[in-house]
Amino acid sequence: MARPKALSGFPEWLPAQRLIEQELLAQLQRVFELHGYVPLETRAVEPLEHLLAKGETSKEVYLLRRLQDEAGDEDAGVPREHDRNQLGLHFDLTVPLARYVLENAGKLQFPFKRYQMQKVWRGERPQDGRFREFYQVDIDVVGADTLPYHFEVEVPLVMAKALAELPIPPIRMRINNRKVAEGFYRGLGLQDTQEILRQIDKLAKIGADAVAELLQTEAGADKQQARACLELAQITGQTSAVVDDVRALAAQYEVESELLETGLTELAQLLDAAQEELAGIVIADLSVARGLDYYTGSVYETEIVGHEDLGSVCSGGRYDELASDGKNTYPGVGMSIGLSRLISRLFRQELVTVSRSTPTAVLVAVGSEDERSASNRVANQLRERGIAAETSPSAAKFGRQIRYADRRGIPFVWFIGAGDDGADQVKDIRSGDQHAADASSWQPPADDLYPRITAAEAYAQSPAIRLVVS
Amino acid sequence: MARPKALSGFPEWLPAQRLIEQELLAQLQRVFELHGYVPLETRAVEPLEHLLAKGETSKEVYLLRRLQDEAGDEDAGVPREHDRNQLGLHFDLTVPLARYVLENAGKLQFPFKRYQMQKVWRGERPQDGRFREFYQVDIDVVGADTLPYHFEVEVPLVMAKALAELPIPPIRMRINNRKVAEGFYRGLGLQDTQEILRQIDKLAKIGADAVAELLQTEAGADKQQARACLELAQITGQTSAVVDDVRALAAQYEVESELLETGLTELAQLLDAAQEELAGIVIADLSVARGLDYYTGSVYETEIVGHEDLGSVCSGGRYDELASDGKNTYPGVGMSIGLSRLISRLFRQELVTVSRSTPTAVLVAVGSEDERSASNRVANQLRERGIAAETSPSAAKFGRQIRYADRRGIPFVWFIGAGDDGADQVKDIRSGDQHAADASSWQPPADDLYPRITAAEAYAQSPAIRLVVS
Repeated sequence: MARPKALSGFPEWLPAQRLIEQELLAQLQRVFELHGYVPLETRAVEPLEHLLAKGETSKEVYLLRRLQDEAGDEDAGVPREHDRNQLGLHFDLTVPLARYVLENAGKLQFPFKRYQMQKVWRGERPQDGRFREFYQVDIDVVGADTLPYHFEVEVPLVMAKALAELPIPPIRMRINNRKVAEGFYRGLGLQDTQEILRQIDKLAKIGADAVAELLQTEAGADKQQARACLELAQITGQTSAVVDDVRALAAQYEVESELLETGLTELAQLLDAAQEELAGIVIADLSVARGLDYYTGSVYETEIVGHEDLGSVCSGGRYDELASDGKNTYPGVGMSIGLSRLISRLFRQELVTVSRSTPTAVLVAVGSEDERSASNRVANQLRERGIAAETSPSAAKFGRQIRYADRRGIPFVWFIGAGDDGADQVKDIRSGDQHAADASSWQPPADDLYPRITAAEAYAQSPAIRLVVS
Repeated sequence: MARPKALSGFPEWLPAQRLIEQELLAQLQRVFELHGYVPLETRAVEPLEHLLAKGETSKEVYLLRRLQDEAGDEDAGVPREHDRNQLGLHFDLTVPLARYVLENAGKLQFPFKRYQMQKVWRGERPQDGRFREFYQVDIDVVGADTLPYHFEVEVPLVMAKALAELPIPPIRMRINNRKVAEGFYRGLGLQDTQEILRQIDKLAKIGADAVAELLQTEAGADKQQARACLELAQITGQTSAVVDDVRALAAQYEVESELLETGLTELAQLLDAAQEELAGIVIADLSVARGLDYYTGSVYETEIVGHEDLGSVCSGGRYDELASDGKNTYPGVGMSIGLSRLISRLFRQELVTVSRSTPTAVLVAVGSEDERSASNRVANQLRERGIAAETSPSAAKFGRQIRYADRRGIPFVWFIGAGDDGADQVKDIRSGDQHAADASSWQPPADDLYPRITAAEAYAQSPAIRLVVS
């Protein structure tokens, strides 16, 4: 086989990078589980009818077909199960969740709090940070028929805590509430609130003047209404004082709306909780609209500070109808991290480092092939106490064995019977320090037990494997 | 949407089951990392030419196509990258490994020891324990041009240790060495050793008489040669005494072969190591042939004791040419666990249990909605010390809040200010025991900190969530 080339849009990492990705996933998982979210993994495929139910991403779906069907084997004429149902790869984790909840409603406990960390696929044209295969990391809370507002407070706080603990640059979570915007628009006398939200969503991209124009040509607003919508969108702030700003604006335009009041009460509640638990991370931004039609309450998006060009790396909101089977309706609130996009940025700009490219903490040297089993015994003694160990692949000169460790960043090499008294010795190959050690009790410094993943700044003065980025 | 039905061949688990699957994956990962294996995750897709390179499973491949191409958009006539390369889903983790090694050879350290735990897809007709989407868990060691024999000892021992530590029934790993069989056949004067191995592989299925017949009609053996091949295949044993049995048989049939001698020396080495580290688990079985042509040395398969009908749950071997780009050749040795098949059996026969269906250890009760933030504060104090906690979703009567915990198997419910002195109290809802507790110091018993996954027998006397199996 000729040397294969990377496939555009399908990122793959080197082992040191995968160690980092895996550690980030484990840290996220830990925060979710500490908050009582249960793990879920759904199949990679869904019937096309489910994938297209929301209509929005129809062009991005990868369809499956069996090579066997194409080749025309003996019973190819008989429609197969997967032909009738036409399977495609899921493009997010929300469609599978909705289907899973309907399918298993009788066996689940509600409110159903789950996290899910899986690859998804989209047949989009690949470009910087936009992949055809990538990780999404989602949490959602799904209720049966009702879902109290306090989960709209919980979900963004759990996500913000999870992201804030990762070894990445600081995050900024921008939140809004659809009820505020819709109530305000209605109070202004505007009816097509979805269309207004769609135009407001373009604010960052095309600017206030262009949006003002579109609000008038597309959303039925007059000049003053358009100005009011834009003024609302310009309100931001970290405390519930934001609510007072909105009320002042509403008074100025003589807007009265129960929906607006409900939205403001909710928004204040979220901001108060965020102030208490995560001051400085969550801010209200009344321009946050999130294009998707199905959000009905809180909406969230998240930027990495200093990397705003990446767009939102974690978004979501409240939807009153995540799923419905005609009899029961399942409202939900959830957020989704586009993890691969985030990680790809970390790698490209070397924003995160790992102290070594293998889990191995100790390489046990091998004096000669006859002594390999003695080296294996030492390695096993270390492993029994949770210390990752490898036996040297060859009984080469010790200098070469040390280089084997060095190339991988393995910090310690163990020499059997190397002391004058015949005792084992262990060498820290970074400092050159070598001293007597007993495999049944020796312990490496806690920092060396497992590869350390560190944000680049904090790590600048320590030796680290530089991540090769393709 | 009408209530969706499960898709045959695409298993999905309930949260309690996913907790178990996740824990098994974590335990395997831990053992692999303790032995210095690095994590790898490859993309789900490979160009069809790679998938079909071995020829064997061509009928099982799922091909991808973008819905957009089908719908005929404006540039559908232009061949796209993925059309020219025709992508399919990987059906194992060995083909992707071979491709990954060739693609990244310059950036990897050899010998390259990696583990990989991913879903794979095969368009086979689904049946009991045979899925279209399932987990494989692989370890491989890949060398550049050479790979010392001792890795053929290491890989099965690492896998046996990993499997032996799982909360599953005991395993039995059966091993053989192709060099023994091939050397023996050649020494008998037989040339088509691949064909003989293919026939010997059928022994368990069709019996000795039928195989003897086929060895004569298909593999060019005479009656005596066929008998000798069958006698070889009947040799089994846990110690290197097996080697003496083979030598005696070789002497009886006047077989002399250097390849046979090499094979026997290797086999003895593996059996000695297994006796030392894992007595009673690894046995030599000279009938183990593994149908695949590319194995050139050791071959391995693994049964669950008492569940032999499942077939091998973990197989592999040595291949001198895992990959080659014409200039370099990469030999390897590896094994692969068919994890979903194993787990599906565990669930169906309730061979494993989990103590609760959520990570949550403590439900913090909510006296009234006004007091929710006080409850959140307690939950956060517990989480800071690694105790998974949830705040009650509603401020219902305490009896209902306790039932919420009970249905999920959450062992503790926390009541704020419930004591006569105004102190908090925590109730073990299994025993009914309730006592004063401080959120900044209270610790649950270690056993209750995380859901316990236990083999069913060991667990028979404790309360456990019964796993619903669909």
